[in-house]
Amino acid sequence: MTAQPLLAEPIDPASVRTEVSAVLSRFLACKADMALGQETPAGTIEILNGFLSAGGKRLRLLLCVTGRYAAEDRGDIAPVLQAAASLEMVHAFALIHDDIMDNSATRRSHPTVRRTLARHHAGGRSTTAAEHLSLGAAILIGDLALAWSDELLHSTGLSALQLIRVLPLIDAMRTGVMYGQHLDLSVTGAPTNDLDRVLAITRYKTAKYTIERPLRIGATPAGADDALRQALTAYATHGAAFLLRDDLLGVHGNSEETGKPCLDDLCDGKHTVLIAPGLQHATMDQRHTLRILVGSPTLDEDDGACVRGVLTATGAQDVVEQLIRTRHEQALCALTQAALPPTATAACGSTSPASVSSLVQKPAPAAPGTHHDQALGC
Amino acid sequence: MTAQPLLAEPIDPASVRTEVSAVLSRFLACKADMALGQETPAGTIEILNGFLSAGGKRLRLLLCVTGRYAAEDRGDIAPVLQAAASLEMVHAFALIHDDIMDNSATRRSHPTVRRTLARHHAGGRSTTAAEHLSLGAAILIGDLALAWSDELLHSTGLSALQLIRVLPLIDAMRTGVMYGQHLDLSVTGAPTNDLDRVLAITRYKTAKYTIERPLRIGATPAGADDALRQALTAYATHGAAFLLRDDLLGVHGNSEETGKPCLDDLCDGKHTVLIAPGLQHATMDQRHTLRILVGSPTLDEDDGACVRGVLTATGAQDVVEQLIRTRHEQALCALTQAALPPTATAACGSTSPASVSSLVQKPAPAAPGTHHDQALGC
Repeated sequence: MTAQPLLAEPIDPASVRTEVSAVLSRFLACKADMALGQETPAGTIEILNGFLSAGGKRLRLLLCVTGRYAAEDRGDIAPVLQAAASLEMVHAFALIHDDIMDNSATRRSHPTVRRTLARHHAGGRSTTAAEHLSLGAAILIGDLALAWSDELLHSTGLSALQLIRVLPLIDAMRTGVMYGQHLDLSVTGAPTNDLDRVLAITRYKTAKYTIERPLRIGATPAGADDALRQALTAYATHGAAFLLRDDLLGVHGNSEETGKPCLDDLCDGKHTVLIAPGLQHATMDQRHTLRILVGSPTLDEDDGACVRGVLTATGAQDVVEQLIRTRHEQALCALTQAALPPTATAACGSTSPASVSSLVQKPAPAAPGTHHDQALGC
Repeated sequence: MTAQPLLAEPIDPASVRTEVSAVLSRFLACKADMALGQETPAGTIEILNGFLSAGGKRLRLLLCVTGRYAAEDRGDIAPVLQAAASLEMVHAFALIHDDIMDNSATRRSHPTVRRTLARHHAGGRSTTAAEHLSLGAAILIGDLALAWSDELLHSTGLSALQLIRVLPLIDAMRTGVMYGQHLDLSVTGAPTNDLDRVLAITRYKTAKYTIERPLRIGATPAGADDALRQALTAYATHGAAFLLRDDLLGVHGNSEETGKPCLDDLCDGKHTVLIAPGLQHATMDQRHTLRILVGSPTLDEDDGACVRGVLTATGAQDVVEQLIRTRHEQALCALTQAALPPTATAACGSTSPASVSSLVQKPAPAAPGTHHDQALGC
């Protein structure tokens, strides 16, 4: 295979996103063409396309491409870009089903897929019927995204031998994220002071799913050796600092930056890593406040401010900032020891939590009252 | 590869089911072992195992094995049995999500996965919280089944080249069944007299998904040629008579035979192929009866008898019986023209609607009040 430098070095996150978005658009346009004139759900494809186009951090695809550079793969980059698109499709599946499980209203500054569908199916039906239909249709769009992530992967252009090396990584990644989701679901709404348990969820949902697997999937077609695999795993395990920053932003950040209402994590009783040290160091009154308010569906701005006050006063925020610093240093140390090619080292460094804001593709805010059309149209 | 006649000829459906069940049990036992001592959802694996063990027709796996004989594949049969197990896992995914979409209470004579989970999560939670949690957990079990169907397929022991020949068939099968499900969902509860539309759903959900793809997946590792592929497609297209029989049984059969309450299809407003000709040939009063009762969540035994009376009086039942006869004859004609090996011809013949009852693995009826334990324990 000859080198086809579709992307310049060093890795430019914006170019990678553009290239992978183009792969996804072409794939869905092809599905829509095949659906024309048949009894197939064209509207469904449009909604999935809108969801995929609505932003998000897209860390996985950057790390997948970074993995390719880490393995010094000089072959055609197109198959790796399509594998990255496949990871993005897996993530769409996970978020669409996650939003159903959390009963979320907003994702990436737009209504969630289920809410979009509820408006779509409202005409001529009772609210209950429209809600039930939208539930089924949202589950199905998630299912299609998971099935199509396979289709994207199978048609990357990787050789049969390269593909069968990648498949077990994909299998493990998907089982892992589903286990993490199950853990998350089982503890949601029941605040715990068990930081280790919350960090275990972080490990499943982020260290492996968001960082390690994408890096290794990108590195595998070129035949990553044991040393490289171990280096990427070490970097990823420590690199979970990213989700800790995400958790802090989910509670203390603002919704324009995160793309979701800043009270959502608290309303849902999500096991952000902040709550456990908050409960550990709280007075009896503060503990009562956390137990009453975190997970309360009626939590308002004042309640949110009250919870944030307790988390700051108990030092929970400092505990998490310290965890982030330690993990960040460990991740950089793992990178140094790995002696990866400079392009890969630079890209891994840029996914550290310190610079994570530069990687966030800010979603366009939807104008009030036009959520639905924007979600369908973009 | 040397021949390993795990199964005697002619194909014995009971032996095929036993072998494939053993593959599924070993796979899930391995998952459960890996889950021990970790933060992984062992209860989830047990529920999925219970669902897979609870019976069902298991036509797909028989047809997958039949496909192998049709292609005169003398290689190791173990990979094909594991591919058949993978198809069974896809089907478990489809049914678990289907039951959520239809809000069904019973499947294979047991409570559906969602209902089992609702009881499981009832302790110490409000009904709403337990319902919501069980919804999320049931979606996740379906998701795991879909992801694990891949894992089963990827570890069949097929060579890389055989596997990449099979993957596009699996991809097409899954997209097809999801499109069929979407169509089904979009027309459920709104009775139509459009027989062609209902037959299109049948085509997606059964002719291809249940018959054609499993046959072709079983035939592909040995490298099925064009003539064989065309023959199997012709047989499958006409062989959709099977679902027509299933539709008739769903309305006119008894629940002991079908494993689900005989009013379910009518309550759900399912587009059984009976309703369309019923509406076409109904008097104004009869049409009114069908439109009021079909899809009514409060439909009782008397209403069911009333609907059945209209379907018989309008000749709808005769129309469907005639469709079954025609398709059955066409399927047998396709088989004759294909000149398949005798073992495959005999097995295809035995999946005809006339003898379908011999293939139905009758689920053990659950004793009242013990549904939950039986579903978990079997």
